[in-house]
Amino acid sequence: MPKLRVHNFTISLDGYGAGPDQTLETPLGVGGEELHTWMRATVGWYRMIGQEGGSEGRDNDYFYAGEDNIGATIMGRNMFGPIRGEWPDDEWKGWWGPEPPYHHPVFVLTNHARDPIPMEGGTTFNFVTDGIDAALEQAFAAAGGADVRIGGGTSTIQQYMRAGLVDELHVAISPRLLGGGERLFDPDRLGDALSRYDVAEFVPAPLAAHVRLTKAS
Amino acid sequence: MPKLRVHNFTISLDGYGAGPDQTLETPLGVGGEELHTWMRATVGWYRMIGQEGGSEGRDNDYFYAGEDNIGATIMGRNMFGPIRGEWPDDEWKGWWGPEPPYHHPVFVLTNHARDPIPMEGGTTFNFVTDGIDAALEQAFAAAGGADVRIGGGTSTIQQYMRAGLVDELHVAISPRLLGGGERLFDPDRLGDALSRYDVAEFVPAPLAAHVRLTKAS
Repeated sequence: MPKLRVHNFTISLDGYGAGPDQTLETPLGVGGEELHTWMRATVGWYRMIGQEGGSEGRDNDYFYAGEDNIGATIMGRNMFGPIRGEWPDDEWKGWWGPEPPYHHPVFVLTNHARDPIPMEGGTTFNFVTDGIDAALEQAFAAAGGADVRIGGGTSTIQQYMRAGLVDELHVAISPRLLGGGERLFDPDRLGDALSRYDVAEFVPAPLAAHVRLTKAS
Repeated sequence: MPKLRVHNFTISLDGYGAGPDQTLETPLGVGGEELHTWMRATVGWYRMIGQEGGSEGRDNDYFYAGEDNIGATIMGRNMFGPIRGEWPDDEWKGWWGPEPPYHHPVFVLTNHARDPIPMEGGTTFNFVTDGIDAALEQAFAAAGGADVRIGGGTSTIQQYMRAGLVDELHVAISPRLLGGGERLFDPDRLGDALSRYDVAEFVPAPLAAHVRLTKAS
C-alpha cells in the first residue's frame, strides 16, 4: 500500500515549525528560515538549487530520503504562496521559479479554485477545493503506486495527522528558539493523534536531531 | 558572581517535562519516567545509586556537569513529594531515602511551613514559604560562593526563567512522545523569557539531544 509521508519538516527546540509574524518577506516567520540551516548544508540541497558543494552524512541521507519513492506532493496554500483569499490573477506560480524541485504532481489545498499550472521539469500545481481527503485521493491516483508526501506547512500536516492518515513523519529538531509560532505537536490541533505513533528512529546529527515517527500498527 | 543553573532537565519530543496524570505511583506522569532513560544509563547515575556499571560518553559528561560547583539546590514542592496542602506530620522526607544524592542544602518552595530536615550525607531540606526570590537568596547564602541549581520541576524552572533569574539551562530532549503534560517552553508560562537566551551548545547523543541555553549578556 502506498504511504502518506512527511519528510524534512523542521521544528525549533521549543517546538515551532514556523516562527511568529509571517509575512511575504519572512514566509516562515521571524527566525523561521534559520530552522533549515541543517538542510541547506547538504549535498542534496546544493544539487537541488543547481550548485556544487554541501556535506554528505546523516543530514544529507535524511534530506534524500524525502525524495525516495515519492510520486506526488500535497501542500497547504500558505506553503504555495503568500496570497490569501481569491486569486487576483494567474501570476503567482509558487516560490520556486519556473522549474520547481518537485518534478511530479503537486496538490495545493485551497478554498479558491484555479486551473492547474504545468511547470518545467515535470511539476504541475493542482488546486483542490474539496478538502484533505479529496486531495489525498487525487494525489495517490497521480502518484501511480508511489508514496505521497505532505510538503507542509504545520497546519496541513496536523490536519492529516489528526485524521489518522499520515503513515510516517521525519521531523528534524533544529537548535534554535523561536519563542512562538505554529507548534507542530500541539495537542489542541492534533487531538490524541500522537498516541498512534512510535519513535522508530532517533538520529542526532551536529546540526539537527532527526526523528522518524511511524504509525503503530 | 555565582549562577543559577538548571541541569539534566529532560523533555519529550513534544516538549513535556512530565507526562499527563501525575500520581503518587507515577510522579512524572504517564510515560514521564521513560524520559530519563539516557540518564539512568550513565556511570554517574550508577554511582549515585551505589552500583557498578553505566556508560561513559557525552550523556555521562552532561550528567556530571550538573554536580560541578553546585552549593545548594532549589526545588518545587511536587519534586520533594506527593503531599499537597498542610503537612500532616513529619514522616515524608523526600523520594530519596535516608541519604539523598544532594549532599548540600536544599530549599523546597512551599506554602506550608515546616522545620528543616537534616539528612545523612550533608543534605538538609529547608522549607521556604515566602517565594522564589527569598528561596534564591537563602540558597546563594547557603552555597557559600558556589552556584545554585534548580532541581525542578517544570513550574519552578518556569517561574525563575520568567523572572529573568536563570543563568543557564541544560535541557535534554529524549526520543519519547508524551502527548500532554507540563510543557517547559510554553510561552503562556514563560512570557518572552526565551528571547533572553542563546543556544550555547547542541550536542546530540544516541539517547538524547543535549542543549545548553545561556542568558544573553
